[in-house]
Amino acid sequence: MSILVVGSVALDTVETPFGKRERTLGGSATFFSFSASFFDRVNMVAVVGNDFPPEHIELLKSRGIDTRGLRVLDGKTFHWAGAYGYDMNTAVTHSTCLNVFENFKPEIPEEYRKSDCVFLANIDPELQMGVLGQIERPRLVACDTMNFWIDGKRDALLKLLGMVDVAILNEAEARQITRQPNLVRAGRMIREWGPARVVIKKGEHGALLFGDDRIFAAPAYPMEEIIDPTGAGDTFAGGFIGHLSRAGNADWNTMRQAVIYGSVMASFNVEDFSLDRMKTLTEKEIRDRYREFVPLSHFE
Amino acid sequence: MSILVVGSVALDTVETPFGKRERTLGGSATFFSFSASFFDRVNMVAVVGNDFPPEHIELLKSRGIDTRGLRVLDGKTFHWAGAYGYDMNTAVTHSTCLNVFENFKPEIPEEYRKSDCVFLANIDPELQMGVLGQIERPRLVACDTMNFWIDGKRDALLKLLGMVDVAILNEAEARQITRQPNLVRAGRMIREWGPARVVIKKGEHGALLFGDDRIFAAPAYPMEEIIDPTGAGDTFAGGFIGHLSRAGNADWNTMRQAVIYGSVMASFNVEDFSLDRMKTLTEKEIRDRYREFVPLSHFE
Repeated sequence: MSILVVGSVALDTVETPFGKRERTLGGSATFFSFSASFFDRVNMVAVVGNDFPPEHIELLKSRGIDTRGLRVLDGKTFHWAGAYGYDMNTAVTHSTCLNVFENFKPEIPEEYRKSDCVFLANIDPELQMGVLGQIERPRLVACDTMNFWIDGKRDALLKLLGMVDVAILNEAEARQITRQPNLVRAGRMIREWGPARVVIKKGEHGALLFGDDRIFAAPAYPMEEIIDPTGAGDTFAGGFIGHLSRAGNADWNTMRQAVIYGSVMASFNVEDFSLDRMKTLTEKEIRDRYREFVPLSHFE
Repeated sequence: MSILVVGSVALDTVETPFGKRERTLGGSATFFSFSASFFDRVNMVAVVGNDFPPEHIELLKSRGIDTRGLRVLDGKTFHWAGAYGYDMNTAVTHSTCLNVFENFKPEIPEEYRKSDCVFLANIDPELQMGVLGQIERPRLVACDTMNFWIDGKRDALLKLLGMVDVAILNEAEARQITRQPNLVRAGRMIREWGPARVVIKKGEHGALLFGDDRIFAAPAYPMEEIIDPTGAGDTFAGGFIGHLSRAGNADWNTMRQAVIYGSVMASFNVEDFSLDRMKTLTEKEIRDRYREFVPLSHFE
């Protein structure tokens, strides 16, 4: 089985109360791929500039990620600079330089066209649809989005939602797209637009999974210290899709496990800047933390 | 077994997007008692004015609540008026008239002094401590508080926390009292001040229970429509303490169940104004909703 991800690879300058990192490895496709690589084979489609440090590509390859779809163009890599305060819930963006990402038109290599699961990370919904037009119908398609597209390309986004199996959004995005403060109602509304499953990520409050007349509520892993929340959402998606791909099915039980794996992976990612924690992560640590979710959420 | 509660009985004027109710039955001791009465015998200590409608007392008695500790004084009953917007998370207070509640000095009737569990609802922490001085050491003491006392009587409140077994606070109160945005750290800090168990209520995001090196995270019951959130916190406490009293123990497993029963009771209470939903509630409905929490929160 393999997973196709289409999204951004970026150099991030991030400041949190615990420090600052300049031009560190980031981007939605990066965080997703790294996380998913612990579960299954990942095919990455993204674009970087010729300023992109080759050691970052080596790092991705060291996790078995297929980077043949990572194009290197003349110009600079997408650069985001932002900061988080003590509450860590929302970033203040200082600058966004799209650079080579501005004209990103995802081209899916021939070798990737039969990927089993697809994650359309947060890019223009028209490009997300364009990806689906280039591939054979996969077993499962999931998408993410952001406030910018909800505001600016709402119609295209609703059309995209009609074409995916799973929508993965955060709390604010779910409320914004449905114009509905109640998250339970928001989740059900989004399902009516197409995706059979909807995941709403709530940061420190965990995540909600919506299916046909069913809801699963997962807690977040209790963390006393979040060093850098950048990439937590894409890392969640990586664990979530990774588990579904590895399991080879997407029944309700596997979906619930996938939400827990997503939470596990996100909880590791926020323990350090960029991919610093993920670089040292082991499969045993993943299994152990997954098991910790049982006494955390079960009662008899 | 029996439960002693000391708190307020009020007449509330409440406005939500779904309607308005004038001088309807409210108050922390009211919501707590009504909820706990589904689990065990409740002894209530509170004060009302001679304007208090006798049918409200009959309603409490109809649930077997012992109201011998409810004093009727010359004057008016505590009256609170407030409104909620669509997000339902925070009330805007229009007026608070303490009336006879202003000089409330809880006197514990002789018959109540051997109560098994005690809930000190949100009143002046010095009065809360005064209650403990009037009774034999109960098996379990829990307390609530609010921003007003955290600001104004912090020292007394910290002293009180050293005397209770369980502190039940909401998210904002936990952050305020610890001056700590991270809830996991806040819960652990409060435990270090005394209470062996801390419950942090997070509204639509559920509740966290803190024990020695252990955390239990309960989801909220998924609700599409909250008609009136007034009293949800005290109703939660009623289900929580009610179950602990009925079970006759407070081990970790029973505590986790108690958090679920608290969530169950709160979810019913917000389905209508005042006690309107609770009045028609049955034990079967409570059991059924408790069971619904299993597929909501468990995974295999």
